[in-house]
Parts: sequence; C-alpha cells; structure tokens
Amino acid sequence: MVRAKTWILKKQFDGFPERSNFELKGEELSEPKNGEVLLEAVFLSVDPYMRLLSSFGMKNGDVMIGTQVAKVIQSKNPTFPIGSHVIAPCGWRTHNVCCGEGLIPIMRDWPQDVSLSLALGAIGMPGLTALYGIEEVLGLQRGETLLVNAAAGAVGSVVGQIAKIKGCKVVGSAGSDAKVAFLKELGFDQAFNYKTVGSLEEELKKASPDGYDCYFDNVGGHFSSIALQQMKNLGRIAVCGSISVYNDTTPQTGQYPYLTMILKQLKMEGFMEARWKHKEPQSLKRLMGWLKEGKLRSPEHITKDFENMPAAFIGMLKGENFGKSIVAV
Amino acid sequence: MVRAKTWILKKQFDGFPERSNFELKGEELSEPKNGEVLLEAVFLSVDPYMRLLSSFGMKNGDVMIGTQVAKVIQSKNPTFPIGSHVIAPCGWRTHNVCCGEGLIPIMRDWPQDVSLSLALGAIGMPGLTALYGIEEVLGLQRGETLLVNAAAGAVGSVVGQIAKIKGCKVVGSAGSDAKVAFLKELGFDQAFNYKTVGSLEEELKKASPDGYDCYFDNVGGHFSSIALQQMKNLGRIAVCGSISVYNDTTPQTGQYPYLTMILKQLKMEGFMEARWKHKEPQSLKRLMGWLKEGKLRSPEHITKDFENMPAAFIGMLKGENFGKSIVAV
Repeated sequence: MVRAKTWILKKQFDGFPERSNFELKGEELSEPKNGEVLLEAVFLSVDPYMRLLSSFGMKNGDVMIGTQVAKVIQSKNPTFPIGSHVIAPCGWRTHNVCCGEGLIPIMRDWPQDVSLSLALGAIGMPGLTALYGIEEVLGLQRGETLLVNAAAGAVGSVVGQIAKIKGCKVVGSAGSDAKVAFLKELGFDQAFNYKTVGSLEEELKKASPDGYDCYFDNVGGHFSSIALQQMKNLGRIAVCGSISVYNDTTPQTGQYPYLTMILKQLKMEGFMEARWKHKEPQSLKRLMGWLKEGKLRSPEHITKDFENMPAAFIGMLKGENFGKSIVAV
Repeated sequence: MVRAKTWILKKQFDGFPERSNFELKGEELSEPKNGEVLLEAVFLSVDPYMRLLSSFGMKNGDVMIGTQVAKVIQSKNPTFPIGSHVIAPCGWRTHNVCCGEGLIPIMRDWPQDVSLSLALGAIGMPGLTALYGIEEVLGLQRGETLLVNAAAGAVGSVVGQIAKIKGCKVVGSAGSDAKVAFLKELGFDQAFNYKTVGSLEEELKKASPDGYDCYFDNVGGHFSSIALQQMKNLGRIAVCGSISVYNDTTPQTGQYPYLTMILKQLKMEGFMEARWKHKEPQSLKRLMGWLKEGKLRSPEHITKDFENMPAAFIGMLKGENFGKSIVAV
C-alpha cells in the first residue's frame, strides 16, 4: 500500500491565491488492478490556467488540477511498463493509481540529455501553445513584427524564440529589468519592463514605429487596450491568456476594442492548444528539433519538494519565474 | 455656369449630431474642361460611417463626406456620356464637376424596374458589406445560427436575408416593436426589441438556447459584451459597425472580451467592404440576382429634398429608418 500526498483546494480563491487556500492531505492508495498502473510524480507543472479554471467546476475539497511527468512504479497495463514515464493529468498528487486513460507516454526517442521536465514546458503544452498560436492562429510570416507580453513566461519565452526562428522582429514585454535582460539573451529584438515605462503606448511606438503585424496576448485587460492601437491595418491577434484579470474579484472594465478592430480591420482569435491534438506528435518533434539544434532554449524555474507546490504556484502568478515553473518532487 | 448647393460641417460634432453642426452653402461651378463631367445628384446616401469618419480627418468647413447616385448632365469624358448614371463619392452636394477618377458607372444591365437608389443600398455598399461579412469574414454555413443587431438597418436587414438564403437560423435585434414586426416580414426566425426586453442575456438565450455560431455586429459596446457570452465554442464574430459608441464624447468602457474569447475560442474580425473591391462586379450581380428572384427585399427609408440631408442623417443615427436611408433630390 502506498500513501500519496495531495494538495486540495481547501477554500475557493477569492482574489489572489494565498497559502491558506490550499491544504496538504494524505491518501491511502489501493494496489493497481488489472489494466491499472501506480504512478509516482517526478515533475509537476504550475500554470496560469489553473487559477482560471479553478473558477469553472472546481469545488472546495477537490484535488488541485494539473499535469505531471510521472514514473510508472507498478503496472498491470502492458502499454505502460514499469520504469516508463508518462504525462499524467492527475492533479497535484505525489502518487496515483489509474487506468491508462488520459496518460500520454513521453515522446519516443526523448534524448537522454534533455530533462523530462521539458515535457511540461517547451516540449509540452506551453511549447505547443506558442507554436499553434504563431502558426495556426496568427499565420506569422517572415519579416513581420510580433509583440508578445508575459514574454519571460513559459509560453511567451517560446513564442519569441519561434518568431525569431521564422525571421521576424520580436518585441517583448515583461515585469522586471532582469527579465528584460533575459529576453535579450533569448534573442528578442526589443524588450521592456512594463512596470517602469512611463507610457506603454510610447514604449510600443518606440519599439516598433511602424506598428505590429501580430500580437500574441498572454495578459489581456488594459495592456491589450493599448496594444490594439499600435497594430498595423489587417493585424492579427492571438488571445492565449489573460493573466491580468484572473485574480479579479469583480471583473475589470476598460475600453471596448470593437471600434479599433473595425478601423484597422483586425482579426483576433482566442485559442487553446488542445484544438490541434491531431498534430501533437509531429509538433513535439519540431520543437525538440529546434531544441537540439540550439535554436530554442527552454529556461525553467524549478522549485524543490512537493510541499512547495502552493508557493511555486503563487510565485508564478506573481511573475517570479523566468521561463517554465516546475516543481521537482 | 451651374450653382451647386453643398452641406458643410460647420462645427465638428460633439456628441450626438445636431442641425447646428451643418450649414447649407452655395458654390459656383466652372464649366467642365477636357476629361471632366458635370454631375447632378439624384439620390444621396446617409450612413453611420459618416459620423464615425467625421472624427478622422474632417475639419470645420469641409463638405460632408458621402456617396451619391448622380446623372451626367455635361460631359467632356467619353467614358461617362451625358444621361448616364454613376456612383460618385463626392459628398453632400447637388452638383459637382470632376474628372472621371473615383466615379463608378452604374452596373451594366441595371434593370429598368429597379430604382437606381438601390445602388446605394442592397445593391451597393451596404449590400456588399452584408455579403462579405457573411462569406469572407464569418464563413457562415448552412444550418448555423446567426445573430445580427441593428437588424432593421441598411446592412442588418440584408445580413438577415442572405443568412436565410443560406439556410440558417437568424435572430435579429432592433430598437422598436414596429421594426421587430418588419424583421419577421423579412423572414427572420426570431426578433426582439432590445429597448424593452428585461434582460438582453435572457432574450438571447431564449431566442437560441444552444447559443450562436455567428454574430454580425453593427452595434458594439455593451451589446457585444452580452452577446459574446452567448456564442458557441469556436463561434465567429464579424465586427462591422459600433453605432452604440459613435456619439460618445468620452469613450465608453465595459467588460473586456478577451477572457471570453479564450474560454470559447472565439474568432473576431473587424472589416470594411472595400477590402474585397476586386470581387465587386460579380458580388453586385449576385445581389441583383437574389433581388430579381424575390429572395432579397430592399426596403428604403426615403427623405425628400437635398435641404433635408441633416435631418435624414440625424434620423438615421436615431434609428428612425427601416432599411436604407436615402435622400432623393
């Protein structure tokens, strides 16, 4: 018998998450039956979407939602042999007994010298999100100028690098001077600290006086109101995240975008990467290819110990991470 | 020598247009030189975009912008013989001398029994706007449900009818009970008076409990904030007009749409019909075909006398028109 630890949502978030919203619990797991496996978490992901989706369907006492890289430590399912690794959408838990459903084996031929944690980052959901936003939603073309915000985050940092691979000019916004320096290391053409610029509007104009062909939005709210004004005619906007409003207790209001969308004939699309599930194997291979060629760096912000999941989550929402936030068990 | 009358923008609009913003002036026209024609207005158009665009580049003393159907009454340009009719973007004037540039001959084979005024309505810019919004922007498919607001207006009334031709369910919003009755006559499946419904949200739910695949937006602002919540996943939105905000002295604010766009993976695009200029001849033929087959009705709200242009314009902005607002000289 294995004893799992789990983090539950003790009390639904009201505004910015606090440590007191979470509770660590123990759970006795029964032996795997036929068709089942026993998983042990190796790396767990904390992502902004967890804050957002907690308001849709989670109730007090539920285990926090989330994805992990797990090792199969007992198996009664031949598809998942002992010692193999899987991506498991089983929430914030150290161990889990489950049938194979929903488990995704780690990509075949995963290189020995690449940390499996990247399957939760640049070679996983955030990387796919960046890729599909650029290719499926924006249709970004060589020579175009792209704006991305939350640019030092798990998705934003990959967005900027893929746009550079595609021969584009990339402007990134982030929340500290150290992140700005980090973005320049990653190859961004322009980067600025949105917290210290006098005027976001002026900063966007300075970074690209001709405006922007494409805007990859992870932030929403006021930032987007300003950014839309700096789009070129027929510009495209991929709406990936809206982290500036996830912690609102009452919805923020601001300028409507509709008039600007008419005058500039803008196209804007909200998306989630799961829409292109059928392309996943080939897309992961492309991301891994860029990584191995040295064209894509995959910075990670690693927090140790399962006990620190809430701290890692809260820190990520505060923007303390450079690249992908990961908890290593 | 011909004396033209013109309506000038005496004083830039500040909020809702008033009679005192306009001034009627006389203008002596010289004889047409080689390559020039003398035009006489027959029908003039008043459209919401004139309110919007007055803020972009017009100054006090300029002739009001606009398009008319005009008759060539003197000609030194063989392309435009005396007695022929053209669509002329020459503003609010009874007469004009101009070279051929910018003039569009009325469609060849224009039927004798169809008023030339329709070249400013269902078989002109508003009709093309409806068609391109549906086909190029929304990609509306048979069996889908479409929402359109300002549905009794020049564009909205054509949108609903084309959507019916395409085998869709159409829900229209308008600003009076008489307009609602008018929409039902035009074949709309559902129509409601947004001014008297208790809750727009509930009304939209009632009209289509499964939500909307497509939304053709002529209104913007608060209406759109509510409508977006009623879209189906992967819904599409064509942003054509934003009449609810054209007369604002300070920009309205409201709920940001970005989060809804992510959660429902919505696609939204602002557009103007001029983008598809290359398709115009064939598109006008299609509209005329539907008209002749009795599938497209083209209601007009006709105001007599050039002197009444400001009244017609203000009345249209107030929503007094059923269908296309036209001034007949």
